[in-house]
Amino acid sequence: NSFDESQTSTDSAVNVFYLLYAASLVFLMQAGFAMVAAGCVRLNNVQNTLLKNLLDACGASLGFYTLGYAFAWGGSTDVSTTDVTFIGKENFFMIGLDFAEESFWLFQLAFCSASATIVAGTLAERCQMGAYLGYSLMLAGFVYPVVVHSIWSPAGFLSANRLNGILWDVGMIDFAGSAVVHTTGGMTALIATKVLGPRTGRFTDLRGRVLATPKDFTGHSLALQMLGVFILWFGWYGFNTGSIIHLTQHMNYTFVSSIAINTTLAAASGAITTLFVNTVVQERLTGEVTYNLQYTMNGCLSGLVAITAGCAVVESWASIIIGIVGGVLYLMCSKLLVKHHIDDAVDGIPVHLINGVWGTLSVGLFAVPELLETLHNRSDHCGWFYSWSRGSADATLLACQIVGLLFVLSWVTVTMFPFFWVLNYLGWLRSDSLEEVIGLDVGYQGGVLQARGHKDEVESRMD
Amino acid sequence: NSFDESQTSTDSAVNVFYLLYAASLVFLMQAGFAMVAAGCVRLNNVQNTLLKNLLDACGASLGFYTLGYAFAWGGSTDVSTTDVTFIGKENFFMIGLDFAEESFWLFQLAFCSASATIVAGTLAERCQMGAYLGYSLMLAGFVYPVVVHSIWSPAGFLSANRLNGILWDVGMIDFAGSAVVHTTGGMTALIATKVLGPRTGRFTDLRGRVLATPKDFTGHSLALQMLGVFILWFGWYGFNTGSIIHLTQHMNYTFVSSIAINTTLAAASGAITTLFVNTVVQERLTGEVTYNLQYTMNGCLSGLVAITAGCAVVESWASIIIGIVGGVLYLMCSKLLVKHHIDDAVDGIPVHLINGVWGTLSVGLFAVPELLETLHNRSDHCGWFYSWSRGSADATLLACQIVGLLFVLSWVTVTMFPFFWVLNYLGWLRSDSLEEVIGLDVGYQGGVLQARGHKDEVESRMD
Amino acid sequence: NSFDESQTSTDSAVNVFYLLYAASLVFLMQAGFAMVAAGCVRLNNVQNTLLKNLLDACGASLGFYTLGYAFAWGGSTDVSTTDVTFIGKENFFMIGLDFAEESFWLFQLAFCSASATIVAGTLAERCQMGAYLGYSLMLAGFVYPVVVHSIWSPAGFLSANRLNGILWDVGMIDFAGSAVVHTTGGMTALIATKVLGPRTGRFTDLRGRVLATPKDFTGHSLALQMLGVFILWFGWYGFNTGSIIHLTQHMNYTFVSSIAINTTLAAASGAITTLFVNTVVQERLTGEVTYNLQYTMNGCLSGLVAITAGCAVVESWASIIIGIVGGVLYLMCSKLLVKHHIDDAVDGIPVHLINGVWGTLSVGLFAVPELLETLHNRSDHCGWFYSWSRGSADATLLACQIVGLLFVLSWVTVTMFPFFWVLNYLGWLRSDSLEEVIGLDVGYQGGVLQARGHKDEVESRMD
Repeated sequence: NSFDESQTSTDSAVNVFYLLYAASLVFLMQAGFAMVAAGCVRLNNVQNTLLKNLLDACGASLGFYTLGYAFAWGGSTDVSTTDVTFIGKENFFMIGLDFAEESFWLFQLAFCSASATIVAGTLAERCQMGAYLGYSLMLAGFVYPVVVHSIWSPAGFLSANRLNGILWDVGMIDFAGSAVVHTTGGMTALIATKVLGPRTGRFTDLRGRVLATPKDFTGHSLALQMLGVFILWFGWYGFNTGSIIHLTQHMNYTFVSSIAINTTLAAASGAITTLFVNTVVQERLTGEVTYNLQYTMNGCLSGLVAITAGCAVVESWASIIIGIVGGVLYLMCSKLLVKHHIDDAVDGIPVHLINGVWGTLSVGLFAVPELLETLHNRSDHCGWFYSWSRGSADATLLACQIVGLLFVLSWVTVTMFPFFWVLNYLGWLRSDSLEEVIGLDVGYQGGVLQARGHKDEVESRMD
Repeated sequence: NSFDESQTSTDSAVNVFYLLYAASLVFLMQAGFAMVAAGCVRLNNVQNTLLKNLLDACGASLGFYTLGYAFAWGGSTDVSTTDVTFIGKENFFMIGLDFAEESFWLFQLAFCSASATIVAGTLAERCQMGAYLGYSLMLAGFVYPVVVHSIWSPAGFLSANRLNGILWDVGMIDFAGSAVVHTTGGMTALIATKVLGPRTGRFTDLRGRVLATPKDFTGHSLALQMLGVFILWFGWYGFNTGSIIHLTQHMNYTFVSSIAINTTLAAASGAITTLFVNTVVQERLTGEVTYNLQYTMNGCLSGLVAITAGCAVVESWASIIIGIVGGVLYLMCSKLLVKHHIDDAVDGIPVHLINGVWGTLSVGLFAVPELLETLHNRSDHCGWFYSWSRGSADATLLACQIVGLLFVLSWVTVTMFPFFWVLNYLGWLRSDSLEEVIGLDVGYQGGVLQARGHKDEVESRMD
Repeated sequence: NSFDESQTSTDSAVNVFYLLYAASLVFLMQAGFAMVAAGCVRLNNVQNTLLKNLLDACGASLGFYTLGYAFAWGGSTDVSTTDVTFIGKENFFMIGLDFAEESFWLFQLAFCSASATIVAGTLAERCQMGAYLGYSLMLAGFVYPVVVHSIWSPAGFLSANRLNGILWDVGMIDFAGSAVVHTTGGMTALIATKVLGPRTGRFTDLRGRVLATPKDFTGHSLALQMLGVFILWFGWYGFNTGSIIHLTQHMNYTFVSSIAINTTLAAASGAITTLFVNTVVQERLTGEVTYNLQYTMNGCLSGLVAITAGCAVVESWASIIIGIVGGVLYLMCSKLLVKHHIDDAVDGIPVHLINGVWGTLSVGLFAVPELLETLHNRSDHCGWFYSWSRGSADATLLACQIVGLLFVLSWVTVTMFPFFWVLNYLGWLRSDSLEEVIGLDVGYQGGVLQARGHKDEVESRMD
């Protein structure tokens, strides 16, 4: 009747608007990633770092349009499906989508771009442009979509969004993508930097002797990095709350505010924890009280990554715990990487990989039965903490999370390790060593001019 | 009855919210334009460039409040009108608007500000403050509103939003303003820079001899320029999707996602095309493989400008073509300007003028009959590509687009050329030549200090 | 019946979405404040300034979660209450909130963070980290919540949102917080800088002799400051329009667009007024025509602060007057502070305190009876301007505004002055004087490197 139609029309409008809003915020995260990476690199590498950031946003858009969406979601968005498939195979080039699906498509595109850009920072200052492009097409067009299909699509073998599952009939819960987006991106970054090796002069001198203390390659602008972190935090409100997808259906709107609150609390506790733990540890070691802004910013991002999986199904106090643990894990892992001479220009591995893993596990610990009931229509297997209080210590959900993580880590390894290894073998991965020492921008038209122009301005003109 | 009232109230709330959201994003584009311009100029011109950007946002607000809205839309938002007028003449100072019209007013204001600020970058580093203020009042208060009235208002002689039209009874389609906003702004920039002349030392040395190679005036910060581009891209989601105006009416919400998707695809393909074409051409000419970030960023903006007219009425594959052609056109025109010694500090002319024209024409080629039917209740004259496939090769819509463009270009020329010519004749347009050489900021309190302070920090303090 | 339920559900979704949108924008203001402060300080203080900005966003989140919300709103959001309380005492740790209240909680959290961060800029370059942290917890956890409770909560003794009031049965109107947020933050900044004293070398030389002309400590980046101002302006659209809270109820959506328009007009007129008044005054004094960007930016912020209290209840022409007066007040007060040797690194006192006071008073002058009727169901006491035109010259509302301001100023003074005085007495407030001269960042790991790295890049590498 006319009421139903009219009602449906308003609801449709609200749902389309909601995903447009969320997708726009997620898209702006590109600016955040770019500013973080640009701030972290040295002045003579700003240009190529920015170009990589811009290109993976663009490349991911086209890759997702042609292949990515079809592989990830094609023909498998229907929750009543009973098929289990490895990969989707419809809707290439957006063929056959109605307007509501287009709205979902847009949101998924923004996620795919975010996933592709995670790696850019880690590889900064030493990766060839061609190799980077190849990587981002590979990730956005194939590796990431398979992960999405397996975990989020109702036809995926790990999915909690289906009627009957394989995984103890339960499935893995990764609400906004600690595993899907961040573990995938972070694991790729780890593999890539292992194959690529550290920046020249970071752990050894120019003759190859190991330095007593690794040389810090200080970024050229903490202000831009801070700006990037705030923009990412802002974008995360779209990233996490948008993942509810249909705002007006099934009481979904009742989740939105607590998702945003959990996101905020985890970010705040991650930042503060990292700052204080580092200050106390440094004070013990050196006797000096220092406050490290870069660690604090990365601790903030760590909290955000860690809460991404569980933001809809944990309580506010649990978000704070998740953020605190995330901050500590970040700090430990960051120092561990340096100790093992793994060079990560923006600390992307401790932020995205380690906290992606931790966030995914945390759902297995803190998922609240009542919230699972509303969100997934079932609450028989909840977070360990709650099943303990029920006296059962049922760890099925935690086990599912672990299985899911093992899948993500293995899948990324078997696809990306050979990929980077071959690139490296062919000499296409690492920049020319001379070029690296003087900064990659020199090989880019305008790069020299940028730094030199800066110097000219500062030095000559004002005398 | 109570249902209808209640329904209307929710719909009204959603519509008001939607335009508020879109207007806010469009407003943020001011930050994008400012960062692009600031990044493109030299350090000793940052301050005056930023001040011009801030002032045209403020000046346009007041100009639009007093005159602009009335001239553009006053008393002529009713689609059932049969009058054709040159200019509106009601609603000065917002008098007589209800709340829904205020929401429309706000969105239109954001557009007007965007239009005024396009010119700022092109004229950077050599234009007097007073002349710039005069220009922005002239554009925001009179020139731009007349264009809006003619093309978008139902009483305009070019409008597709009216019941019976003059232009073969069809009208011109410019959904979000490739012609109205970008061609108007870009044409003004071309006229202004022709009258104003190039920056001292750009094409000639200080004694007036033509340089063999034009001197590149490298901007002081690519990072800020990149930030500006990402912010503009983000803002474009509000710019293009918001132009649907009433979200809940007439199935408008079914357009929103595909508008955003088309916008994204055109931006991505514009950027990638520009990068690769430039790389290939440079490699042919010099043998060196280089990647130019600045061209890539401007190619991205070119794609965004080009898709603005057609984003609601073309298919996704057409958006990609529009972006690709936009990128190529940008590159050709940018080089052509340099060859003809037309100095454009931010390449605003190839981005906004050339791609504004191309975007407007592209509607005449790619407009889909079904989408025209839903949006304008008619599909008898569609894009040439589709009328060919119908076997008719009816180019009426393309002809309308051309007529519309001729109007915009002529109108801007007959109003702005005399304006700038007189200013120049009176000596009010061009900065003092000495001041120009040392940078306009010196004449501004704090300007010297800014650059000198920077130098002091960097040089003296850290020794 | 089913229609009502369904309708309520859509409305709930819209309301939740609306506050999520507004809260996100307000949250982004943290980036704006950080960029303004970072741009205003010298390069060797960027790091500690940014850290303070990040920490107060994080600290305020946790402080608000534990204590702040409960003190401000706990158990007193019901407008039918007749109790008058000094402080709330429920909902600590978000206990007992339903989803709609969580949405309100989120929005209030963003406000609290904004309030805490106002002070950061004023104290830049000379305040210890520990003292700053102590202050921000004190403000976010106790001082600010009491102000909120008194003015905005229906149980507050100054509230206009209650059925029967104490204050001549009228109450004070501060729609989005000129008094609650800005006067509170600005007054704290004034007290803190009085206790803390000016930066070394600002008004005296290193031997303590008063300088003939105060030394300008030019900020290291006007571009970042400009970016910050535009981001703040953008955020203000969320700040002011979001304060309507329930979008779909009581015709609230009819207010939204005019709130955003008033906000825009006040910002624009504040900026333009400040620029021109300063230019004219300087021209009279020195004979030179100069344009000061920093004053213009602060004039813009002054207009935004001033319109915050009245944006929903004044007409558009009144917004322009409020902005103009705000700009003039800013300029006068800024010069007055310098004359009295009160050092404010970002001019936060003239922007937030003076214009917070002016904005609150302006409601008593310009509040429109019809708008008060719709918003507060009463119009017997309106702005003085309108009561004059009714022939009554009833200044009750203006008197309420004054009483409210006296309360805010006194409350902040009696709580914060002893707090800062004790901190200072214990030697915990002011940084080490040597550290201050070389820049606080030196004491922070990475701080020296940041500036030195910058120098290295610029100087050595490019030779």
